[in-house]
Amino acid sequence: MSSTTGHQPTVDDATAWWSTSVTRIAPGEIELRGYPIEEVIGNVGFVSTIWLLTTGALPTRAVSELLEATLVASVDHGPQAPSIASARMAATCGVGLNSAVANGVNVLGDTHGGAGQQCVQLLNDLVERHESEGIALEQLAREAIADHKGRGAFVPGFGHRFHPRDPRRDPLLRLVEEAVARGDISGRYLAAGLALERALERGERRIPMNIDGISAIVYAELGVQPELARGLFVLSRSVGILAHAWEEKQAGQRIKGPLPPPLLADYTGEATRAVPRAHRPATP
Amino acid sequence: MSSTTGHQPTVDDATAWWSTSVTRIAPGEIELRGYPIEEVIGNVGFVSTIWLLTTGALPTRAVSELLEATLVASVDHGPQAPSIASARMAATCGVGLNSAVANGVNVLGDTHGGAGQQCVQLLNDLVERHESEGIALEQLAREAIADHKGRGAFVPGFGHRFHPRDPRRDPLLRLVEEAVARGDISGRYLAAGLALERALERGERRIPMNIDGISAIVYAELGVQPELARGLFVLSRSVGILAHAWEEKQAGQRIKGPLPPPLLADYTGEATRAVPRAHRPATP
Amino acid sequence: MSSTTGHQPTVDDATAWWSTSVTRIAPGEIELRGYPIEEVIGNVGFVSTIWLLTTGALPTRAVSELLEATLVASVDHGPQAPSIASARMAATCGVGLNSAVANGVNVLGDTHGGAGQQCVQLLNDLVERHESEGIALEQLAREAIADHKGRGAFVPGFGHRFHPRDPRRDPLLRLVEEAVARGDISGRYLAAGLALERALERGERRIPMNIDGISAIVYAELGVQPELARGLFVLSRSVGILAHAWEEKQAGQRIKGPLPPPLLADYTGEATRAVPRAHRPATP
Amino acid sequence: MSSTTGHQPTVDDATAWWSTSVTRIAPGEIELRGYPIEEVIGNVGFVSTIWLLTTGALPTRAVSELLEATLVASVDHGPQAPSIASARMAATCGVGLNSAVANGVNVLGDTHGGAGQQCVQLLNDLVERHESEGIALEQLAREAIADHKGRGAFVPGFGHRFHPRDPRRDPLLRLVEEAVARGDISGRYLAAGLALERALERGERRIPMNIDGISAIVYAELGVQPELARGLFVLSRSVGILAHAWEEKQAGQRIKGPLPPPLLADYTGEATRAVPRAHRPATP
Repeated sequence: MSSTTGHQPTVDDATAWWSTSVTRIAPGEIELRGYPIEEVIGNVGFVSTIWLLTTGALPTRAVSELLEATLVASVDHGPQAPSIASARMAATCGVGLNSAVANGVNVLGDTHGGAGQQCVQLLNDLVERHESEGIALEQLAREAIADHKGRGAFVPGFGHRFHPRDPRRDPLLRLVEEAVARGDISGRYLAAGLALERALERGERRIPMNIDGISAIVYAELGVQPELARGLFVLSRSVGILAHAWEEKQAGQRIKGPLPPPLLADYTGEATRAVPRAHRPATP
Repeated sequence: MSSTTGHQPTVDDATAWWSTSVTRIAPGEIELRGYPIEEVIGNVGFVSTIWLLTTGALPTRAVSELLEATLVASVDHGPQAPSIASARMAATCGVGLNSAVANGVNVLGDTHGGAGQQCVQLLNDLVERHESEGIALEQLAREAIADHKGRGAFVPGFGHRFHPRDPRRDPLLRLVEEAVARGDISGRYLAAGLALERALERGERRIPMNIDGISAIVYAELGVQPELARGLFVLSRSVGILAHAWEEKQAGQRIKGPLPPPLLADYTGEATRAVPRAHRPATP
Repeated sequence: MSSTTGHQPTVDDATAWWSTSVTRIAPGEIELRGYPIEEVIGNVGFVSTIWLLTTGALPTRAVSELLEATLVASVDHGPQAPSIASARMAATCGVGLNSAVANGVNVLGDTHGGAGQQCVQLLNDLVERHESEGIALEQLAREAIADHKGRGAFVPGFGHRFHPRDPRRDPLLRLVEEAVARGDISGRYLAAGLALERALERGERRIPMNIDGISAIVYAELGVQPELARGLFVLSRSVGILAHAWEEKQAGQRIKGPLPPPLLADYTGEATRAVPRAHRPATP
Repeated sequence: MSSTTGHQPTVDDATAWWSTSVTRIAPGEIELRGYPIEEVIGNVGFVSTIWLLTTGALPTRAVSELLEATLVASVDHGPQAPSIASARMAATCGVGLNSAVANGVNVLGDTHGGAGQQCVQLLNDLVERHESEGIALEQLAREAIADHKGRGAFVPGFGHRFHPRDPRRDPLLRLVEEAVARGDISGRYLAAGLALERALERGERRIPMNIDGISAIVYAELGVQPELARGLFVLSRSVGILAHAWEEKQAGQRIKGPLPPPLLADYTGEATRAVPRAHRPATP
């Protein structure tokens, strides 16, 4: 054993280092958050299992339905997205589908996959201040927008560079409104989101909620923490990433770059020049 | 424009290079395999959407149920798996949950995530030869096992280094048998899988089907190609990967290695030695 | 061609989209930043090529030597690091060495690989304020430390959770001091770094500069932007990541988790419980 | 502690599980393959350190020079390569440079980055058979080519889809020939490579050695195992990947896809269709 201090660690320290409350395994046994896998299989749906594993509890039917619709809504937006293009290119390079999916998922970063997370945070902040300080949502929304503009930042969850009106907004919004009407969720974060949308309206010009905004409302209503919202989006978009990587694999192309040959990227750099004499290698 | 040949490519070549049959987008419009997203959201479940995107068609209820149970069965097997441990460590290194999930997914390679794919291939081969050459499945199974042994290879989908009997086998097998009884699936691949399991039995010693084997039976019965079977497993295990990465993020640890400090990896290399004089840097 | 607006894009738009000043290729020709590859090979060293490609110019001998020593200093710190452990585990999962290296590199994030970048930024800020506002470095260093403490943050580049005194500090520092003495670099960022180190001293207790701190001094002296400093660290650590992944590949282990069997991660979650009756799957 | 068998593992099992011969660390000490880091820094070049870490020994000057030229030769081939395009797109998605580099490296798979490895294997096989069975290299080369053609496979290391003659072939080949002339390397693998090149010649039509072929000759001459040859290529191409990711980061674009807006990927799938009534969600 190697150790750096006088403290004498034991094997218990090693197993405790990896402790988890997600899954218990023992020979012949697997339990997900305490539920034996034999009972889960065939009785708990995939969406409910996603909720169970990430939050620790089985969802109610209302929660599961909202989560399911939200996961479905984000599965794909075509090969223009760098996540999809990355996965398709990877699929032509001689790696497994797992690595193609990994490359797609890896680029769902702060800019490409983070708007939902940021919007959940924004909605949480608005509702928190509204309820603790009694300031009207309309005013808080205007302030938040002014703050983003001042920083030269987009308001996360609103506007889409491609869709004048995101076609995923209305059907998800309707499900949220129905759930509020049934009392399944409070509607407090929906109110904040709609306040932001109204505050972004300038006469004719509208910047309607996009898929990230309406997804953020769902996640905030369900109590999902901002960062986990990104995680759930990752699961959703993984479906499209896989579908595209698989389509590309089946096509059988090799080493697909971004442009079809014989097209070449433009070169905008230095003109041809000679290596100065001073440069000779001599590394031992 | 840069081009390397006399051929004059047009912008159509560029857009055709990225052509897809998965998703159509236009301003204000998104269609998944032809279905408008507005109709999909709230009407098509997540599991059905996975099938739709990866295979091109909406599943029947029978297909969806088998797929759902199979996706649920594989979501997690705890932090002993390198995929899970990789994601947990990544979550402590200052990258987003997306990158933590990517690292987990990336290692679901031929060895860690490929047994299902290999087993689908094996089942396909057995059924194909059984039906085209009329050889009994029992004989084909014995030959296949002998072939694997001869190559020093595991028979993919059978035996588990941890579970004497994989607890996921029986509940999934029951669902498959019920689907065969209802006529939802043919049962031809189930027969091949069971033939392999019987052929692996040696008196007291059994090497029962594991999660990869029973999953492979489902996928083969549903007509899923071997490599896509790995892809679907990736979607399933992504759930556990996310749950573990998220648990680790919440714990807030920084730069988690495989062993708790002050434990150190053993060093088994060269004893301390001096750099010879000959080695001096001189790279220009 | 698919397009969304009245604007008629041409194939030139597609090739311009990927324009670069790094490398020009044409049939039979490759130029790195303008230098024909035939002249580069055998005449320009690897370290100089790294500098050429990332900054656009060939380095002087002084720059190349400092960069080389800094790249060498960070190559490895053993399997305790999650980057190394991730790569080693990946190497046992049936993916190529490229994917094993990718998993290691991917976790060199803000926390695990970002201290150097943050320290370059800090040194730049200190020197900028010192020179534009005439405030003494000592005072600026004390303020910066107080600011970090106030935010509960580590001062990046100082202290090491494992080494009381990082053995890479002194040899790199000596090279920096020699370069200052020769007039190769200005020494302004060295002064700022040493001011921080002195300001962190409290009687007996010292928090000396670590590898990230002394590397940051080199990079700041060479005019390397903070984020590129992380990039150069990535190149350096890739060497250790590769060496460990390769050692693990040669060992031939399969599906290596963080703990040796039969050790298991501790389970700290819910006790065994039954799935409630309400949960039955019915997704179409 | 959790354990699954009667065997009582100790903490020594845990530290032995991660044993390594690459690097030894102790408080205040770092040794690379036995060499104290203080002696390595400033005395051993970066290329020599790469060799030291991956093979275990310091290289001779001849080995270091050949390795250096080979590493330099492969650093970049522009954004047409999916590895480079992947890294550039990643850099626009809100992830660190480390993750952008990881995505580039990850696609250096069997097809995109594996030709060198395969060519080293081929050269090893030819030389081994030539020397053990006494068959002329010319005959072995013709047989190998016929074998590849029969399998519909490219001969790895020969021909280039872009360069009629790879400009990296001649300068590297010259260095190899000079090293043979000096007696630094045996020239046996060079002979095998040239035999393959001659055997591929058909009158006017030539399929000359490419960068992978000439690199494979170097690696085979140096005794580098085939898979490590891929690893060394990964280190080389990482430089170009980083340079491109960094260029893209500096440009500041957000969410860069493969085609410039308003260009869209062509859609070739199903026409618009309605979701059948049968599909209603009901997952609990």
